[in-house]
Amino acid sequence: MSANRTPTESFVDLLIVGAGPAGLMLALWASKFDMKIRIVDDKSARVRTGHADGMHSRTIEIFQSFGIARDFISRAYHINEICKWNPKPSNEDEIERTETVLAQPQHLSRFPQSALNQGAIEQILEDKITSEGKIRVERNTIPVELRLEETEACSDDQEAEQGSYPIHVTLRNIGEDGRASTPAAAPSDEIVRARYVVGCDGAHSWVRRMVNMTTEGQKTDTHFGVMDIIPLTDFPDIRKSCVIHSKNGSVMTVPREDRLVRLYVQLGETAWDSDLVRPVEVTPEMILEHAQRIFHPYTLNFGICDWHSMYTVAQRLAPRFDYKNRIFLAGDAVHTHSPALGQGMNVSMQDAFNLGWKLGSVITRVMKPEVLSTYNDERRPIALALINLDKEMTKFYSNGPSRQSRDYQTFRDRFAGFVSGTAVCYAPSALVADTSEQSLAANIQLGQRFPSHKVVCSAEANPIHLSDVMLSNGAWRILTFAGDIESPSQLERVQQLGAYLESLKKQYSSPEHTTMEVFLVHSGTRHFNILDLHPVYHPWDDRLGWDYWKVFSDDLQDFEPGQSSPYEKYGIDKQQGCIIILRPDQHVSYIGTMDNFVDVSRFFNSALIRNAVIAEPDT
Amino acid sequence: MSANRTPTESFVDLLIVGAGPAGLMLALWASKFDMKIRIVDDKSARVRTGHADGMHSRTIEIFQSFGIARDFISRAYHINEICKWNPKPSNEDEIERTETVLAQPQHLSRFPQSALNQGAIEQILEDKITSEGKIRVERNTIPVELRLEETEACSDDQEAEQGSYPIHVTLRNIGEDGRASTPAAAPSDEIVRARYVVGCDGAHSWVRRMVNMTTEGQKTDTHFGVMDIIPLTDFPDIRKSCVIHSKNGSVMTVPREDRLVRLYVQLGETAWDSDLVRPVEVTPEMILEHAQRIFHPYTLNFGICDWHSMYTVAQRLAPRFDYKNRIFLAGDAVHTHSPALGQGMNVSMQDAFNLGWKLGSVITRVMKPEVLSTYNDERRPIALALINLDKEMTKFYSNGPSRQSRDYQTFRDRFAGFVSGTAVCYAPSALVADTSEQSLAANIQLGQRFPSHKVVCSAEANPIHLSDVMLSNGAWRILTFAGDIESPSQLERVQQLGAYLESLKKQYSSPEHTTMEVFLVHSGTRHFNILDLHPVYHPWDDRLGWDYWKVFSDDLQDFEPGQSSPYEKYGIDKQQGCIIILRPDQHVSYIGTMDNFVDVSRFFNSALIRNAVIAEPDT
Repeated sequence: MSANRTPTESFVDLLIVGAGPAGLMLALWASKFDMKIRIVDDKSARVRTGHADGMHSRTIEIFQSFGIARDFISRAYHINEICKWNPKPSNEDEIERTETVLAQPQHLSRFPQSALNQGAIEQILEDKITSEGKIRVERNTIPVELRLEETEACSDDQEAEQGSYPIHVTLRNIGEDGRASTPAAAPSDEIVRARYVVGCDGAHSWVRRMVNMTTEGQKTDTHFGVMDIIPLTDFPDIRKSCVIHSKNGSVMTVPREDRLVRLYVQLGETAWDSDLVRPVEVTPEMILEHAQRIFHPYTLNFGICDWHSMYTVAQRLAPRFDYKNRIFLAGDAVHTHSPALGQGMNVSMQDAFNLGWKLGSVITRVMKPEVLSTYNDERRPIALALINLDKEMTKFYSNGPSRQSRDYQTFRDRFAGFVSGTAVCYAPSALVADTSEQSLAANIQLGQRFPSHKVVCSAEANPIHLSDVMLSNGAWRILTFAGDIESPSQLERVQQLGAYLESLKKQYSSPEHTTMEVFLVHSGTRHFNILDLHPVYHPWDDRLGWDYWKVFSDDLQDFEPGQSSPYEKYGIDKQQGCIIILRPDQHVSYIGTMDNFVDVSRFFNSALIRNAVIAEPDT
Repeated sequence: MSANRTPTESFVDLLIVGAGPAGLMLALWASKFDMKIRIVDDKSARVRTGHADGMHSRTIEIFQSFGIARDFISRAYHINEICKWNPKPSNEDEIERTETVLAQPQHLSRFPQSALNQGAIEQILEDKITSEGKIRVERNTIPVELRLEETEACSDDQEAEQGSYPIHVTLRNIGEDGRASTPAAAPSDEIVRARYVVGCDGAHSWVRRMVNMTTEGQKTDTHFGVMDIIPLTDFPDIRKSCVIHSKNGSVMTVPREDRLVRLYVQLGETAWDSDLVRPVEVTPEMILEHAQRIFHPYTLNFGICDWHSMYTVAQRLAPRFDYKNRIFLAGDAVHTHSPALGQGMNVSMQDAFNLGWKLGSVITRVMKPEVLSTYNDERRPIALALINLDKEMTKFYSNGPSRQSRDYQTFRDRFAGFVSGTAVCYAPSALVADTSEQSLAANIQLGQRFPSHKVVCSAEANPIHLSDVMLSNGAWRILTFAGDIESPSQLERVQQLGAYLESLKKQYSSPEHTTMEVFLVHSGTRHFNILDLHPVYHPWDDRLGWDYWKVFSDDLQDFEPGQSSPYEKYGIDKQQGCIIILRPDQHVSYIGTMDNFVDVSRFFNSALIRNAVIAEPDT
């Protein structure tokens, strides 16, 4: 075969470069939509051990929304408590425990902060993708050329633009040995024409370089020695996460699965022996020796070291997360920072989770293409906030014992919500309606992810978390908090809303997937017969009958006596109720009264494409 | 190849005939022990749809003990509530709801009664067995000859008997078409010499016939039409389990996974159209027609019928569950009854769960062979009680509306504990010590399975169910409820007990597996440093360090505020504590004070084989 043959050309809706946590999350999300996806990675296999390991509550909620949280939870270490150690005032050569704090307030999420090695997390994602049978990761494959047809990208004709494949990417298989012959064309080269490309290809992102973007920021003087060991020690808190300041440096510990403990051993540049800053030469024993000095008077050794590494913190941020709304970047490709907050893998997957449904909805013609700009608008401020927090946290460690290190609870409280990922809030846009009436649901924050509480599935008398029935499938959710439907006047409002919602669903229905799902949570007795409600709340199917899994009661007393009701937890009036619109990523788009059809219609009209095939309903 | 060749001969510790729920449970349990096991089944594949579907709390607890409950729970329907329907007094042609009752009291178990088709349950068991890689089900294989060498079976020499393989079984592969050429020898025949054989081969058990045993009892006049449908109906309780008495017969409904509902349509012999009693001719439409008359005035139809069957209840019981303590029978092979209590699959798997660890412990020389007689002594009374209850329940359905059908809660309360499986209690024997002091733990019943409550793993600050750390691995568990270890005198008692327990563990240690595990639950603050306790409570390993997962606190306040503590739930004194010995199947063997070493030693000496290799400890 000649190396000069014409490469094959194929078409794809979405090409993902990089199959780390961000790329895999994006592939999983995109696979929920009816479109053609490919994902390539230069490595021959996924990460086996070590690397990132922290998983925060929101990331686990996202896993739960794909039905893979239980795989993760059963294997992960749950970080419930953090112990703070400082030098002993009576003898500064020794450390003592000065504080024990809960890792995060319980109300933030039903899932605790957790830790599991990155390899296991990637495996859970890839297994799920594989089991769905639509996509497989193409390994040992790199892109060698990328070109965006500028004219098509700027087309004003929406229809034409959506149907076009303006990105030309040349892919090359580099084989198991991992070396590509870069200059000339290779026999394995193929040209892929893509509608959208996403670079999830790490800190040295090739895709980012192809669009001439450089990240801004700098390498710091802060160095970490990292290792995963099974410790042999008399340190009493070795199975809790610890933040240790000593006169010999700082250590952060994160217990893990399989008896492992992750140690981040950090020393300010002055304390650090300069020959340790050459990563390839660092051995576990060298990191251990530094840790031993910090742990004094406790002993610390290991029989098993599963992984170790050494790196210097670089805090860098890209100026934009997209290029002309056609090429997107996620994860380390656009932000890098220290591991001090355990955020890297989380924010990367959350980038991809923000982007996946938007691309899927645009490609399947449910959503308007211009909405894609919300990806940059929503995620870049998060990365910027993270880097600012990371700078503060890096100083906290490298500056040694301080007032903050002796009042850790106060220090930690400031960023618990951000770190958990549940406090992330997106500003008003085409996807977050500024017409919302926040006061109708005091504890549901417009722009934040919808918090899940237990309700009772009326038809099955089954207590269930609301998020368990709102899995990530690409659908928008309209939650009717119907109030007291045993009041005839309230029931009448609910029925009128039902008729409106039915017409709304028809306007935006898509042959490719369910665009909208309607749920109802009422505050009346759970024995209310749901078949008395408008059929939009329990849709009929000629083969499957009624849908019994959309109507819920807040009456949990038979199952969780003494607990406050979901209406109380959400801060919603039990008589009047309200409606809440959730985006496919569970963020709150809109809060309004049950009668305000105008604002609901206006909201959807600004984000979604009305299905022209179906005539306007009469109602 | 000649059909007259000498069959190959091989040796096996345990041969299991039949790979239904009982056989698979036995294989899974036995695989935890270091021994050679084979399991054969005449069918070419496992059950796909229909058949049994009820899973009661104790069975789910057993699944949990093998780490497979979450696979089950996430797919199963949870039966929380039962609706009772009776004829409307004002119009007996119609039915009305007369009662709504909770399926079982919450304190019985953390797992609710559930329903999932038998095929899925068998798949979960077989997947687990396969993933462990020690055994695979040999399908299309039947035993054609079985012979027990009487002399060896009766040997008085324990060593010789344990080493012998007195059961000769000829196995034959019958191919995919399922027909064996019974009279002559076949080319595929092989002789297996087994130490023990268990027949889990159903109501028509071949193994049972080989030992000349017949079940006693009779076929009744009670007939069930059974079907799994996705209902199209306006009946408001279709997604709850219902017990319906009408003037046209009775129906029991069990909602299921994937929108299915199981209907048991039962009619007394007088009401039943006699041509329906020929099972092969019964169609789903015929069963539906009867159901429709019972559901009147509600409509009932289906678009999809997943499975249907028709059968006549036979209540039969075998005179013994073993033959000379060498050949055992479990499940339908020794007891059959109606599906009215949803017990069949449960009691069958529970038989196997009672037997598996006993065989494993005897074969690996941990336990004395005579203890095997407890299988018959413990399980036959359960089957007898079940059949008596089943007779009552069958009458309840076939007799039509009655006083009991109008006071269902009272009727149901009588057997909730038995049905859940958690009330099953084994009488004193070599495995249940009559020297126990029941009053030390008011809510832990000697002979019953140990109820699980949440405690806090001190080292990890992690709330966890006790049963989650006592998985089924063949080990006996000594639970030290250590009381208030912040009191110096109590701590001293705990340390002395620790020294005793260490010597005890050494006496019975086995090279094949862990014979005993020691756990400690104290009532002091969860911040107590567990390394201050005797090492038997946190054993050391030179490569893995301390074991941090054996000491627990009852201080749950940080995690579940307002809940009563485990000591209160168990009814154990918070100062004095007690010790509890659990069998490998989680049944309570012994309850005593922390100082009564004599009775503990006596108990183990009666059941276990002391390891002769290790010298008596000095202590």
